[in-house]
Amino acid sequence: MSITIAVPKETANGEKRVAVVPSVLKQFTKLGVEVRIQRGAGESAGFPDELYEGVSWADDQAALYKDADVVLRVEPPSADEAGKLPEKSLLLGFLTPHEGDTRIRNLNKRRVTSFALELVPRITRAQGIDALSSQANIAGYKCALLASHLSPKLFPMLTTAAGTVRPARVVVVGAGVAGLQAIATAKRLGAIVEAYDVRSATREQVESLGGKFIDTGVSAEGEGGYARELTDEEKAQQAEVLARHIAQADAVVTTASIPGRPAPTIIDRATVERMKAGAVIVDMAAETGGNCELTEAGKEITHQGVIIAGPRHIPSMAATHASEMYARNLVNLLGLIIKDGEIHLDWDDQVLADSCLTHDGETRHAPTRERMEGDK
Amino acid sequence: MSITIAVPKETANGEKRVAVVPSVLKQFTKLGVEVRIQRGAGESAGFPDELYEGVSWADDQAALYKDADVVLRVEPPSADEAGKLPEKSLLLGFLTPHEGDTRIRNLNKRRVTSFALELVPRITRAQGIDALSSQANIAGYKCALLASHLSPKLFPMLTTAAGTVRPARVVVVGAGVAGLQAIATAKRLGAIVEAYDVRSATREQVESLGGKFIDTGVSAEGEGGYARELTDEEKAQQAEVLARHIAQADAVVTTASIPGRPAPTIIDRATVERMKAGAVIVDMAAETGGNCELTEAGKEITHQGVIIAGPRHIPSMAATHASEMYARNLVNLLGLIIKDGEIHLDWDDQVLADSCLTHDGETRHAPTRERMEGDK
Repeated sequence: MSITIAVPKETANGEKRVAVVPSVLKQFTKLGVEVRIQRGAGESAGFPDELYEGVSWADDQAALYKDADVVLRVEPPSADEAGKLPEKSLLLGFLTPHEGDTRIRNLNKRRVTSFALELVPRITRAQGIDALSSQANIAGYKCALLASHLSPKLFPMLTTAAGTVRPARVVVVGAGVAGLQAIATAKRLGAIVEAYDVRSATREQVESLGGKFIDTGVSAEGEGGYARELTDEEKAQQAEVLARHIAQADAVVTTASIPGRPAPTIIDRATVERMKAGAVIVDMAAETGGNCELTEAGKEITHQGVIIAGPRHIPSMAATHASEMYARNLVNLLGLIIKDGEIHLDWDDQVLADSCLTHDGETRHAPTRERMEGDK
Repeated sequence: MSITIAVPKETANGEKRVAVVPSVLKQFTKLGVEVRIQRGAGESAGFPDELYEGVSWADDQAALYKDADVVLRVEPPSADEAGKLPEKSLLLGFLTPHEGDTRIRNLNKRRVTSFALELVPRITRAQGIDALSSQANIAGYKCALLASHLSPKLFPMLTTAAGTVRPARVVVVGAGVAGLQAIATAKRLGAIVEAYDVRSATREQVESLGGKFIDTGVSAEGEGGYARELTDEEKAQQAEVLARHIAQADAVVTTASIPGRPAPTIIDRATVERMKAGAVIVDMAAETGGNCELTEAGKEITHQGVIIAGPRHIPSMAATHASEMYARNLVNLLGLIIKDGEIHLDWDDQVLADSCLTHDGETRHAPTRERMEGDK
């Protein structure tokens, strides 16, 4: 009997994406697997059921999971849902290994082999599986757009009979995948863009997109493409130089994050109060505590004339394309697991070994296991 | 005693603009006039009181109008406010001459000389006074941005490790000032843009912005830069060709309007129902009835997966720059009226003659006078 892939409707509040989109179905056929989808799973991403051809359907999660071999998700299952996954099945998706220990214990109780997309190594061979990057790309685009949408100014220069409007000044903080796409998008709209990242190696990338790199004199290269945490003194120096640039900005997009940790505070209240009336801050890190001290996750607030947006579920703002890119990431990962229509787990493959969270009743990801054992 | 210019805080619901911004104050000095502003007038446009230098202040509209010579507004005063304007004063602003007859009668009762920016002739010399155009420019930009913000797809093409995202297809209906700026903005964002206007002469302008002109085989050149109304047969032919393009679009921005008349219906329910799930319509004509049959002014609705936005007060979405451009339009008009610090009404000047709505107790604008006399 062939492998059955199950695709649930996402259950997290505000999540609009879906793990499988119609355009990747032919890849599943090539892999020699069957696809079973929960009715309505793709609807909020712009993929009504009728667009999925050659799949079978389930009315609810229970029917979906019955005898399924692999479950593909976007967001992690709730602890309760994790406890209802098919026994010994495979689970692929974002799994936030740094939190949700009951979920992880339930995965182990069900002897689920789970692969967390957050743990996929950032090596060349795994680029097509790098869902953090594909989703960050979308998020950076959407946050730059949100900033321009909320701004009472135009981003482009406009020369009209009623005089010239000068281009907006945009500051992007954090020049990872999201930050670079925010820079590119603000540039497309005609803004003057300055950008900052603690990793000074990003200067070249910022400049290649037409942005100006803000030099604070502080560098903090870290591992895995992320920044290390800064000392207090470095933070103060960085903050003051940045604050001067931010105070002049018409829009600021912040994208600084440290995986599994609260987001660093980059813009404090005093800096907000130095900004111009009508300036906009879009804080991409709102869900992990925010890069701005005043950010409220899921809200748009105004503080002394400065508009501060802390959007949640940002990739869901472009749910169609975010799902498409995510689905391709999953299919590429699945391609390392399924050979000739059968599941074959090659633990010598670095991608599988690194990204495996749980297997055969055990937490395989060492930092997660150690944290959970420390919590006992 | 020198001329006093009064600038009220706008009273229309949802209006964020202000008629005078700090950067034009030096122009008033050159004209030799005094400026008096109602406290808080510029705040919602991003101009707190402290940015206005060298002006005097009034706490309310009554104090503002006392002995004032000229009143500068954005939106028309309410009928009640019109009846409280300083006697024999000048009023410059949008005045919607096709409606609000009680307001016009009250202007005449107060012997107010009013100039309606809607009536400024579209001649070369008056381009710097053309507030319809300056505000339409802003509106076109904001509506294209709104479409990209609401779209679950990306507008630009994106080439990533997770595959390529194709650029969005955007259709802009109406290629006046607003439509052309919407085309330019969607192009900036990387979309493939098609545009349509009943005036086939706009083809060249559309193409110069990188848009593709949709040829429906119907032409309807009208007077004053607007389109004439089409016959039913022409409408049907236009609608069917357009509907085919709209059905394929990821986003549609409609900008078709006929001055003083309800907006023409361009997209009927059946066409919406042919569109893709996740497609977006931004209807710039929502306030005058809408170009889409399903538009609800001031709301974002979803019909069979299609998102339909009918924004109101669109220039207020970019209140800072909209106010700047509008203020320059007003100053330019005032320059035709004030010579050596004195009001001098030269009725031989076509701009003044055409744009005058009321003067010395009489409605000077013939079509308005005739409509109001017909109503008696």
